[in-house]
Amino acid sequence: MTRDDCLARDAADPLAPLRGQFDLPPGVIYLDGNSLGARPRAALARAQNVIAREWGIDLIKSWNTAGWFELPRRLGDRLAPLIGAAAGEVVVTDSTSVNLFKALAGALHVQAAHAERKVIVTERSNFPTDIYMAQGLSGWLERGYQVRLVDRVEDIADAVGPDTAVLMLTHVNYRTGYQHDMAALSALARERGAVTVWDLAHSAGAVPVALARDGADFAVGCTYKYLNGGPGAPAFIWVPRRHQAQFVQPLSGWWGHAAPFDMAPHFAPCDGIGRALCGTQPIVSLAMVECGLDVFAQTDMAAIRAKSLALTSLFIDLVETRCAGHPLELVTPREPARRGSQVSFTHPHGFAVMQALIGRGVIGDYREPAIMRFGFTPLYTSFADVWDAVAILKDILDREDYDVAARRGVVT
Amino acid sequence: MTRDDCLARDAADPLAPLRGQFDLPPGVIYLDGNSLGARPRAALARAQNVIAREWGIDLIKSWNTAGWFELPRRLGDRLAPLIGAAAGEVVVTDSTSVNLFKALAGALHVQAAHAERKVIVTERSNFPTDIYMAQGLSGWLERGYQVRLVDRVEDIADAVGPDTAVLMLTHVNYRTGYQHDMAALSALARERGAVTVWDLAHSAGAVPVALARDGADFAVGCTYKYLNGGPGAPAFIWVPRRHQAQFVQPLSGWWGHAAPFDMAPHFAPCDGIGRALCGTQPIVSLAMVECGLDVFAQTDMAAIRAKSLALTSLFIDLVETRCAGHPLELVTPREPARRGSQVSFTHPHGFAVMQALIGRGVIGDYREPAIMRFGFTPLYTSFADVWDAVAILKDILDREDYDVAARRGVVT
Repeated sequence: MTRDDCLARDAADPLAPLRGQFDLPPGVIYLDGNSLGARPRAALARAQNVIAREWGIDLIKSWNTAGWFELPRRLGDRLAPLIGAAAGEVVVTDSTSVNLFKALAGALHVQAAHAERKVIVTERSNFPTDIYMAQGLSGWLERGYQVRLVDRVEDIADAVGPDTAVLMLTHVNYRTGYQHDMAALSALARERGAVTVWDLAHSAGAVPVALARDGADFAVGCTYKYLNGGPGAPAFIWVPRRHQAQFVQPLSGWWGHAAPFDMAPHFAPCDGIGRALCGTQPIVSLAMVECGLDVFAQTDMAAIRAKSLALTSLFIDLVETRCAGHPLELVTPREPARRGSQVSFTHPHGFAVMQALIGRGVIGDYREPAIMRFGFTPLYTSFADVWDAVAILKDILDREDYDVAARRGVVT
Repeated sequence: MTRDDCLARDAADPLAPLRGQFDLPPGVIYLDGNSLGARPRAALARAQNVIAREWGIDLIKSWNTAGWFELPRRLGDRLAPLIGAAAGEVVVTDSTSVNLFKALAGALHVQAAHAERKVIVTERSNFPTDIYMAQGLSGWLERGYQVRLVDRVEDIADAVGPDTAVLMLTHVNYRTGYQHDMAALSALARERGAVTVWDLAHSAGAVPVALARDGADFAVGCTYKYLNGGPGAPAFIWVPRRHQAQFVQPLSGWWGHAAPFDMAPHFAPCDGIGRALCGTQPIVSLAMVECGLDVFAQTDMAAIRAKSLALTSLFIDLVETRCAGHPLELVTPREPARRGSQVSFTHPHGFAVMQALIGRGVIGDYREPAIMRFGFTPLYTSFADVWDAVAILKDILDREDYDVAARRGVVT
């Protein structure tokens, strides 16, 4: 494998033209789309239109004429095919954390008749906010719910038992890139009387997701990573039709009311996915989510997955061959089916090495403990990018050109 | 009073120059800033900078370098003086509904030792989402909380008793513009062992608010109305320092953690107002909130209040004199201290009359039952606007130039 081989693969890549729909700064190899997706070129004009015309000129009328009120549902319908959901089952709204609270509450409500089921099972390695939201919800319910943290994937099956109300998992692990078998774990949970809540933060737009086919019960996810919705863009929640009638959640704001403009003094949830809505949404940030979805509409998740696996396999191969001898350890599964669209390596000085990479234009990120994360986003990452990133990594490691005293800041 | 008198008042108005900092379409008299504030001219450039530079070029680094992570706190500190709060007591985040849930939960937690206090008292005429959120929260707690709806302001005192945990009120009523006496009602609640939760949706930026001086316990509010933050811009929550240590709320996401980047598997709330945060925020919508606050920083709430009362008094006088004989009924208090910065009149064909006004460029809005709302925003409403709006209203009524069959849409 040479850099020319990579260029040849880029020339043959059917997704290569889509890179032109993103604005990336020159001199940067951006391998952090798993944290904050790159900017679709269309996003700026879209925001300008919302701000200058819809807000500035049409003002309050835009709630009707620009479809602001319908935006969470309309974007949800556009996002649905990417996660194997149907129209009318997804809304884009609020934050992932808030949506997880709704989904967990809805899941506990579905299980309310089973008083003996008082445990939410999840992984200790889950993204912390998921664990915190489960702890927050269970701590407030006097029935005595608890959150059970499982240490290893292979222990999940044993942890789901007659006491389990909910199995809550993040489909692709944010640190390791490990991808759960959604079908098998959903079936396991169902057999044991538990319902599943899936967090798709690192799955939506990254790997094919088939929520309905795989028998998931509820799901939430993020639009600002692989879906390129913009910093902190509103998240999504999926409630399949079969659960909607009994979906009850405590964040019962007016946007989820059957007749919000009747201004009645008692809450009555609307039919359908709208009952997962709560309050008024940040329209400018929300509107830009569509620009990312517009790019996805020009391809499909099968093509994205094929290139994603080619990129991550190439990266693993190149790091392991070209950086051999350095204390790098792969923590991402080698088996393609168990891998998301990121690759993580540990290094004893992982934080410092990542800072050195960033200083040389290779933007990945770092997660405790000692993990360097590299996200591969088939819409705008090339095979030559992978080659060049590894060449820079090799140079940094060979010359020990990193500062072990580098200080950490915040990165989300 | 003539139109020339109004022009003279505009010429003498110290706030008149601030109108130039807002973009308003020509030919429009915008009296709906109580629903969606007008666009500060600076908002477009601010959003462009966030999208093109901070997101597009600096990408993930902007969480640090552009201060994205600190934005809820920084904007909260800037907003605090407008509501009589101190720095470190306010964050701008999430929606008003979600923040109300946090504030109510925090208030119930403060009262947890008083098992006999199981009632949240509020008004039947409160904005519905406030009632819905209280119903949603109380319905989920097995202790048997209930929401008590009071029909008349004068009955609030009787409704707050030994069974009351929380008195939850919207400071200025969204329909009538009635302004509660925050100091008196907070004192009453405190004497009777209840804590107060105030919704400042129609107060922040509209009337002087003195949360600390008036003895309020918790507050939430909106930035997209009088504060001109943009459509659906994130809301705010106030937790005074004296309550922060015991402020516990179930939406315990990672942004409220003491060490969010340690990625620990157990929630530990941070010190201070940060524990009112939950998940990742919509940065573009959030950043624009500052453009509205920048305008407020050039004046003060006393000057705004003086002009607000002059505008609303003039509007009431002109409508009642020039439109005498038409079935208009003032539902906003005549007493200045009991009035917010809006004026509401009922008319048997209120919806149709409002549609006719909008058709002629006078943008107010309509709320059931039969109420036409007119918001007066001293930063960009002139005395001549008031004169002209009444002249158009008079013409519509005199000529019965409205369509009683007009259909309703959604308006927030």
